[in-house]
Amino acid sequence: MNAEIIGVGTELLLGHTINSDAAYVARELARFGINVRRMVAVGDNRERLAEALRDALARCDLVVTTGGLGPTDDDLTKEVAAAVCGVPLREDARSVAMLKEYFGDRPMGANQSRQTLAPEGATIFPNPNGTAPGYAITRADGRIVILLPGPPRELIPMLESSVRAFLAAKSKRVIESRILRVFGMGEGRAAETLGELTDGANPSVATYAGDGEILVKITAAGADAGEVRKLIEPARDETIKRLGDVFYGEDVDSLEQVVVAALAERGLAVATAESCTGGLLAKRITDVPGASAVFNLGVVTYSNAEKTKILGVAPDILNTVGAVSRETAIAMAEGIRALAVADFGLATTGIAGPDGGTPEKPVGLVYIALAFAGGVRVRITRPQGRYLGREWTRRRASSHALDLLRRKLFDLPTEIAER
Amino acid sequence: MNAEIIGVGTELLLGHTINSDAAYVARELARFGINVRRMVAVGDNRERLAEALRDALARCDLVVTTGGLGPTDDDLTKEVAAAVCGVPLREDARSVAMLKEYFGDRPMGANQSRQTLAPEGATIFPNPNGTAPGYAITRADGRIVILLPGPPRELIPMLESSVRAFLAAKSKRVIESRILRVFGMGEGRAAETLGELTDGANPSVATYAGDGEILVKITAAGADAGEVRKLIEPARDETIKRLGDVFYGEDVDSLEQVVVAALAERGLAVATAESCTGGLLAKRITDVPGASAVFNLGVVTYSNAEKTKILGVAPDILNTVGAVSRETAIAMAEGIRALAVADFGLATTGIAGPDGGTPEKPVGLVYIALAFAGGVRVRITRPQGRYLGREWTRRRASSHALDLLRRKLFDLPTEIAER
Repeated sequence: MNAEIIGVGTELLLGHTINSDAAYVARELARFGINVRRMVAVGDNRERLAEALRDALARCDLVVTTGGLGPTDDDLTKEVAAAVCGVPLREDARSVAMLKEYFGDRPMGANQSRQTLAPEGATIFPNPNGTAPGYAITRADGRIVILLPGPPRELIPMLESSVRAFLAAKSKRVIESRILRVFGMGEGRAAETLGELTDGANPSVATYAGDGEILVKITAAGADAGEVRKLIEPARDETIKRLGDVFYGEDVDSLEQVVVAALAERGLAVATAESCTGGLLAKRITDVPGASAVFNLGVVTYSNAEKTKILGVAPDILNTVGAVSRETAIAMAEGIRALAVADFGLATTGIAGPDGGTPEKPVGLVYIALAFAGGVRVRITRPQGRYLGREWTRRRASSHALDLLRRKLFDLPTEIAER
Repeated sequence: MNAEIIGVGTELLLGHTINSDAAYVARELARFGINVRRMVAVGDNRERLAEALRDALARCDLVVTTGGLGPTDDDLTKEVAAAVCGVPLREDARSVAMLKEYFGDRPMGANQSRQTLAPEGATIFPNPNGTAPGYAITRADGRIVILLPGPPRELIPMLESSVRAFLAAKSKRVIESRILRVFGMGEGRAAETLGELTDGANPSVATYAGDGEILVKITAAGADAGEVRKLIEPARDETIKRLGDVFYGEDVDSLEQVVVAALAERGLAVATAESCTGGLLAKRITDVPGASAVFNLGVVTYSNAEKTKILGVAPDILNTVGAVSRETAIAMAEGIRALAVADFGLATTGIAGPDGGTPEKPVGLVYIALAFAGGVRVRITRPQGRYLGREWTRRRASSHALDLLRRKLFDLPTEIAER
């Protein structure tokens, strides 16, 4: 089954909203072996939306739209989709009841009443977080149009609850994928390392650029789960072997997830002391549900005075080699480890920019230290090429900090090998 | 001038990469008054990419592609675009020199040599962060195809440096927009509040859903800057008047930016003590360049013991009303304010989920306290509708914390008025 996804909303075309819905819907469709062939975004414009819908329905079996289901006048998706599919809109009793329940005692906006109109014969997907239900319209020729709301807080719960069940009922063939995550190797280098492995079609091995990382996806299709696994597993094993220790996890979400799980398994805890990453490292660790088992304390010491007061960094160090130095990073890591009585102290200090760099200590220079019983490990990240902004620099530094801890936990060398 | 943006890459269709490039390019084009009519994403597939390019060129003056310019075999964009525009690829001396400079002493991958081929007659945009230059091909009929790399760390610097100059040379009419940011009002309610203001075309007033916020964009076009300003300003003033104190800033990036600027202006400092937000609040404050002028210390006290040890929260409070309580939030805020010797102490404690909720203290319940000389302000956020995940809950709590501080700094009431 082939599908197209149409995002509706002028905010997409203006670039004010990043179309994360399309990616979310695509991943959901992939679960059911539905291939997305094209994604489109159009504005809140009747003619152009109708054209996009007609074009998509001419090419594929399923069209999913996101957005344009709200109560305002420029929300046109339902009306246009019903017209393109040749079905009228009718008041739907269940939608009336859902709308009343949503508002409860609160006053209902005047323009909300259009939310009770549904395309005749459509499957209706309830929206627990908003007033716009979703719809699946099956055309006379069997092609399906699914209409979903745009805000992720409405779209995602709707997909997970009712839309998933609808799709499961439509799909057949078994498809399985594994995602291998890689930190510390560029995509070009990964492609060379994997070489002919990426030539196959079933299983297919493909590399994708993630957020400062590389993802390697291995996919196979077959009649049943056993057949699929026999195709996937040898390719997966060979891929991991070639990648070496920059491979950090299979079917995991992130470095932080791997690190938190490894700490929890070993009954160990980490505490963080951050300067340039400003809380991002603690935030990433506590993004993982259950992080409280391995993380009790993090501090953001953003001034020299606080580094000394809270972490005991010697003023001598700060006055001679400065806050952005190997010595300060180590003293911060040791200080937070002692303060938190934790197994590991992990610290960052550097220059996130855009200002504050000097020829000796350029923007992008970050010292990362890991203190543990009987030793420390240090990693230094330096600016590469052009400055990519504060967010990128901070994200990269926090990833290196997590990777430094991961390598210690798994007895791997501190340094990322040059390949 | 009308444009379409085509994202190229199977990772987009699989949903592994969110197409943030399209939004970035759209915002860049909008600066030059270029209207984006449609965004498309296609896979690494020769025929479908060619079809998308031909369709787009039939509809508009400018097509921008992102992605598919890398060194691997499935990077097809340059080849396909050159063919669709009817120009051959030729070795380009400048591209050879750039590639040599990029690699320096490092070994060059075998497949990198294709990066030296350029569409004949194209403008070449250097890539300081990768091996793939960008290109602008002007067809015989005057229509333009701009090819840009996919990774944001390559795309963004290229847009900002060379592509922007290329676009400036092509555009004419003056268009200006103002973005008003709103926290604490839903989009439906904002649309009702603005009413007939949103009916106009020049100036246009439109609401967009942001990340837990609302954006109101006011746009006008005219022959010169003076004419545009005369159109925009009355609409802007009326919009702000109607929104009331949920409006927090014009042409600003975020709540944290407004809060950091207001603190800096007044010579005041804030310190943070986080439980459920786990560093996100400190991270958001330190996302703002120059935050060190107003922020010296943040702590993430993720256990009861650390709340007592670091912040002096009385064990009695933790043992009776518990860590997730008004009393604990206030004690944390007062504790961090004293520890940091700061003007404000801002604290969060709550249940981010997915686990850990009880009937009395459900997932999504967060207490936020702001301590200052002579008082405290408290805000309580409760779960609304269905649980939207840990990230959403934490993001929302950190936004409310920033809004609580904003309202104190601007002498506004603590509570968001019901509208």
